[in-house]
Amino acid sequence: MILEVAILDIKPELNADFELAFNDAQSIISSLHGYISHQLQKCIEKDNRYILLVNWQALEDHTQGFRASPEYQQWKAKLHHFYQPFPEVEHYSLVMENTNNVGNC
Amino acid sequence: MILEVAILDIKPELNADFELAFNDAQSIISSLHGYISHQLQKCIEKDNRYILLVNWQALEDHTQGFRASPEYQQWKAKLHHFYQPFPEVEHYSLVMENTNNVGNC
Repeated sequence: MILEVAILDIKPELNADFELAFNDAQSIISSLHGYISHQLQKCIEKDNRYILLVNWQALEDHTQGFRASPEYQQWKAKLHHFYQPFPEVEHYSLVMENTNNVGNC
Repeated sequence: MILEVAILDIKPELNADFELAFNDAQSIISSLHGYISHQLQKCIEKDNRYILLVNWQALEDHTQGFRASPEYQQWKAKLHHFYQPFPEVEHYSLVMENTNNVGNC
């Protein structure tokens, strides 16, 4: 499993529009081969910043499958105009974790 | 629930030492009030980069509880000397997510 990480800085005054657009766009990635799960989270310290975390089965499911798909053009049309600057996307693989307390809070 | 996000750039040649030290240090945060779960993930594109994701019940569990605790001094002694530059830590709150496929892959 691979974690896609994108820190998204949104143009001033467009947070609400971006959240609406993302809510609409998220079904695009959810339907793709290799997609596992995603979260959009909003930064507490910087008002126009979000982080997108997407779990994919394999790196290529994102870098090749998604980016070469017709769905990517829809995703781009719905979301890319909100970003300033355009985000750098990175991928990560799990080293270690502790999820023992999840569900106990 | 709050997500702490820290992108950790490790001094050259010290990845293996850092991973050993983190493996040792992670029990420090796991025992603290408000801690829920954490993941350490390694960047695929940048060899000396990691991301630390920690879920806390509340922002203050990290920014006040942990950082004012004696345990923070132990954490710092075990880990801070690996970082270059010293990381900026941000906190995020969930906007939306889809975890329907988790467990199906």
